[in-house]
Amino acid sequence: MRIIVQKFGGTSVATAEARRRAAERVVQACREGYMPVVVVSAMGRRGEPYATDTLIDLARQVKEDVPPRELDLLISCGEIISAVVMVQTLRALGYEAVALTGGQAGIYTDGNYGNAKIKRIDPRPILSKLQEGKIVVVAGFQGIGEDGNITTLGRGGSDTTATALGGALQAELVEIYTDVDGVMTTDPRLLPEARILSAVTYREVCEMANQGAKVIHPRAVEMAMAKNVPIKVRNTFSDAEGTLIAAEIPERVITGLAHINDLTRVTVKLNGGEDTRRVQVMVFSLLAEAGINVDMINVNPGEIFFVVRDEEAEKALTLLREKGLTASGQRGCAKLSVIGAGMQEVPGVMARLMEALDGAGIDVLQTSDSDITISFLIKQEDLRRAVEVLHRKFDLHKG
Amino acid sequence: MRIIVQKFGGTSVATAEARRRAAERVVQACREGYMPVVVVSAMGRRGEPYATDTLIDLARQVKEDVPPRELDLLISCGEIISAVVMVQTLRALGYEAVALTGGQAGIYTDGNYGNAKIKRIDPRPILSKLQEGKIVVVAGFQGIGEDGNITTLGRGGSDTTATALGGALQAELVEIYTDVDGVMTTDPRLLPEARILSAVTYREVCEMANQGAKVIHPRAVEMAMAKNVPIKVRNTFSDAEGTLIAAEIPERVITGLAHINDLTRVTVKLNGGEDTRRVQVMVFSLLAEAGINVDMINVNPGEIFFVVRDEEAEKALTLLREKGLTASGQRGCAKLSVIGAGMQEVPGVMARLMEALDGAGIDVLQTSDSDITISFLIKQEDLRRAVEVLHRKFDLHKG
Repeated sequence: MRIIVQKFGGTSVATAEARRRAAERVVQACREGYMPVVVVSAMGRRGEPYATDTLIDLARQVKEDVPPRELDLLISCGEIISAVVMVQTLRALGYEAVALTGGQAGIYTDGNYGNAKIKRIDPRPILSKLQEGKIVVVAGFQGIGEDGNITTLGRGGSDTTATALGGALQAELVEIYTDVDGVMTTDPRLLPEARILSAVTYREVCEMANQGAKVIHPRAVEMAMAKNVPIKVRNTFSDAEGTLIAAEIPERVITGLAHINDLTRVTVKLNGGEDTRRVQVMVFSLLAEAGINVDMINVNPGEIFFVVRDEEAEKALTLLREKGLTASGQRGCAKLSVIGAGMQEVPGVMARLMEALDGAGIDVLQTSDSDITISFLIKQEDLRRAVEVLHRKFDLHKG
Repeated sequence: MRIIVQKFGGTSVATAEARRRAAERVVQACREGYMPVVVVSAMGRRGEPYATDTLIDLARQVKEDVPPRELDLLISCGEIISAVVMVQTLRALGYEAVALTGGQAGIYTDGNYGNAKIKRIDPRPILSKLQEGKIVVVAGFQGIGEDGNITTLGRGGSDTTATALGGALQAELVEIYTDVDGVMTTDPRLLPEARILSAVTYREVCEMANQGAKVIHPRAVEMAMAKNVPIKVRNTFSDAEGTLIAAEIPERVITGLAHINDLTRVTVKLNGGEDTRRVQVMVFSLLAEAGINVDMINVNPGEIFFVVRDEEAEKALTLLREKGLTASGQRGCAKLSVIGAGMQEVPGVMARLMEALDGAGIDVLQTSDSDITISFLIKQEDLRRAVEVLHRKFDLHKG
């Protein structure tokens, strides 16, 4: 049995025309000899009756707080309704299909309402429907706890449903259909010559997402990576080939650039005295207690540097000053990350990056790196220029 | 544990104001020391997004026929959404509540999509929530098959959910909230002095429903009757006492009048020859095969009389005439039924009824009777007058 999992996100099921396009993708897979398992998100956006946000608003209008268990039960209806409508769309094209809730599809989660993790998948309900020759349409974003309560999977939920099913069903491929042509080398709003990547590794795409690129959610990628099922990110509305995400891909030093805007670089001066270590500990406990995320931390005997989001900067600085510390902030910074699994093998990448930025007259305020990522903190006004020079330096515009 | 089941139909949950009124009924029950189990229908009518008919239309717009399994899955969302909104309404009044789907409430059905019967109820899920001190809100009209598929209960569905739960939970009382003050002696559009009955027996109310009165569905009554749980039909929007439905009530000869309009009385002439019995059999097989319902059948050696709905009369007459039979139809008849568990004990009821109709100059075209019902076929134009004289004859306007 050659199984393919095909996931259609919100924009791919928002209108009758979009759903017909999506259904044609499924029919095409049937013609290619696949048995498709289709995963759908809820239809439309806030304001449309069956969208997730509209259902949430319905409950909040009565009382602002909603018990998490009831909220999950309510919003699970959005994907169920979408699944039945997709079954009808496939049947209108002459294909028999069946709709399953997350629970009916054998997706068991922990009881963590609103942000549940998939604990296990019983593949038998879906396999038995496929054996009857039916296309299976699964309501995304949801599962069932061992106690029978309905839970939703939180951010990236329907992608996670798709990749987890791909692993459990030993699918040949998981296709994630969206409204863009694939994973790009950088943000096309910054650089028009940004290019669709034909292939990236699981780890690279997770890094790109973590570093601010809007692609598939890391939790979904991890599910596929665990069972080594390839993912393809494709556009429902175009014939572009899309991006393959797999464990190994053709060699390449740099894969893409990602960025996060609106950051403040905070500097805390240390007096160099005996209490240096105590102060270092205090700074980070203080921020953690206040729920402020810090990034690009750099601690040395004379100073502590770190980065927070612009909107949390004032709160962070006030907290530090109340403890008698000398703290200052530089707002309007951007973190530009260079991602490539190949850079581990190639010496001198950092040098080439620094050289390129220096040649363009761009100040590097701070750096950090992990095995497949090098990040630069720069002024936000330099971001576009930095993306341009690095993209060209590493020939990312060439296929 | 003193349990009360309170069911709120479509009009009782259609608007925020109606739901607040409904919730106040629940709160009142709490104050009286009950632990309420609330059963809700879907919100609103066709055209409103979460109404049953709107959900059906959503699927039919894509393809006219909808697989019964998927149709049930789809429309079950209507009551689930309503249940969560009712939980929020109760919480806004300061009461903790929990929403359960039919399956989560332990309601197991046969697999008959669209018209499922309740096979068994596991009372434990609801009892455990009640023991936590929570009001339990159950999505009406639905259950789950032993295979995990969601099924809906067909006509009278949410009433049946309520009375079946009443039996399984050994409730003290099942309250059916609607938009009328209770069960009436006759249709108030025919007779303004029609009165709310303070009490009727299970069997009487079933007969009234079967004979055309729009009250609680007989299937729902049977569920309560089996466990001898009293039902009360009440108005969400008024303080009227409502109608108690129970096994035994204070004695009374006649309880109420019900009627069915738009009937045709069909006469088939028999030639009295040897094939009389063959023709008798043929007539009823012919009609059964064509799916035509017949009522008030009267067979004698010279003639066959029966009643069909006006809209099926032409079809029935054509079928009979094609077989060479002499058949004629009298359109525009009404069947008026007199219902009363007390009439079994009292001789001469038929005589008193006939006398009253005769005194009013009303021709009786046909009669039929069972132990607690006597029905008269009359011309539709005589219906209002007939209801008036019988209502007065048996003092139904007096409490």
